[in-house]
Amino acid sequence: MADRFLRRAGSIPGGAGGIVRRLSARAVLEKQLIKDGDRILIAVSGGKDSTVLAWALSSFRRSLKTGCDLEALHISSDFCACCKKTVLAARLESWGIPFTDLFVPVIGRLKPGRKMNCYWCSTQRRAELLKYAVQGGFNKIALGHHLDDIIETFFMNLCAQGKLLAMPVKLRYRKYPLTLIRPLAYLEERQIIACAEEQGILRGACTCPYGINSQRGDMRKKLADFTGNSGAVKRRILAALSSGKTDLLAE
Amino acid sequence: MADRFLRRAGSIPGGAGGIVRRLSARAVLEKQLIKDGDRILIAVSGGKDSTVLAWALSSFRRSLKTGCDLEALHISSDFCACCKKTVLAARLESWGIPFTDLFVPVIGRLKPGRKMNCYWCSTQRRAELLKYAVQGGFNKIALGHHLDDIIETFFMNLCAQGKLLAMPVKLRYRKYPLTLIRPLAYLEERQIIACAEEQGILRGACTCPYGINSQRGDMRKKLADFTGNSGAVKRRILAALSSGKTDLLAE
Repeated sequence: MADRFLRRAGSIPGGAGGIVRRLSARAVLEKQLIKDGDRILIAVSGGKDSTVLAWALSSFRRSLKTGCDLEALHISSDFCACCKKTVLAARLESWGIPFTDLFVPVIGRLKPGRKMNCYWCSTQRRAELLKYAVQGGFNKIALGHHLDDIIETFFMNLCAQGKLLAMPVKLRYRKYPLTLIRPLAYLEERQIIACAEEQGILRGACTCPYGINSQRGDMRKKLADFTGNSGAVKRRILAALSSGKTDLLAE
Repeated sequence: MADRFLRRAGSIPGGAGGIVRRLSARAVLEKQLIKDGDRILIAVSGGKDSTVLAWALSSFRRSLKTGCDLEALHISSDFCACCKKTVLAARLESWGIPFTDLFVPVIGRLKPGRKMNCYWCSTQRRAELLKYAVQGGFNKIALGHHLDDIIETFFMNLCAQGKLLAMPVKLRYRKYPLTLIRPLAYLEERQIIACAEEQGILRGACTCPYGINSQRGDMRKKLADFTGNSGAVKRRILAALSSGKTDLLAE
């Protein structure tokens, strides 16, 4: 099904790029993430995940009957010292995806005495992203989270919060006319890295100067041991999250 | 709440026995596992878990207003070479729990060419247990599974079956007028072992000659690394299993 869908856009590439195209197409089709006429805002950080996401979505457009609109939003902030925005912008424009940069003073918005942390940064950026999407008449927001992110979040909620809660692949907001989608949900990080290397995307990729937060980093190491880094085990875990009476991958 | 409940039966012991009494009382009260007038059949294997279960339940009886009936059923089979039944029977009778032994030819019932395995053994024994309970007019069956068993089962279903499924602490059967309860659900195996040692129960405990099945054994080791054997982490995982829209600990 994914192959037939992709071939409408032309031949499917081999190698790492082909794997990304197929697995993201499968997620899009199985979870009904994208349909004709959607206006999709892709949140791009400059990192490998969201850049590969934009690359994959640019070809989907051609597989749809009437297509969909794609635009990319990058949020700059006051801690992002090295930001290869021009490289990112040029890349996206070459894929036919208009690029906008929005400056949000994440540190500047901290209340006096408060320290910078991942949660603050992500809530500020998420708020601006939603506002921009609503104002721009978008109905979908695409984020670059992948299978390892989803599983880590699930296990962090399980072990640290005592909650059965995953990162949804599809999330309809109640407050806004928006749906969040994560088309890379079936892809492991190593598959995305391989694609990024193959497509020359890693050069010019941005990484957060604060690094991955340590709780997530610890969980990542533990899960690597626990799953033996097996893609099959991870995909079974993902399947389990949709298998109960409540689908933890959809809201 | 658990302490007040337990004190109706007399003073609460300290040490490992006190921990088992408190945590099993908490499970019984929070999950409403036992009420006055229940007729409870305790499945005893001769192992430390079900023997400690019987010990804990024998004191609950005195905490209830009108009490409950307790009887123990042991299933002997054709592979159980060493079976310290007489020690077990004497122990249970000393706690005021009548003991019955039922012989079930688990190997003898195997179809030609089939090999003995844990699944076959447990389904045969479970069928006989249910039949005996229905015929004896019991409304509850108590099993000795503990917190580590429940978590292992959850993770085995997650990683090997791709299912979100735990071992219920309370399970109402549809086909029979019976409810399955697992009062040791809040207790880690090491807490049960400590109690068994303290109470002198380990001497005379039976262990299956086939040993723990290897899939469960592998999962046990992996989970020990993953949770760091932290009781707090395990209890949070257990809390998570009841936290979603569907309670995975009740059916």
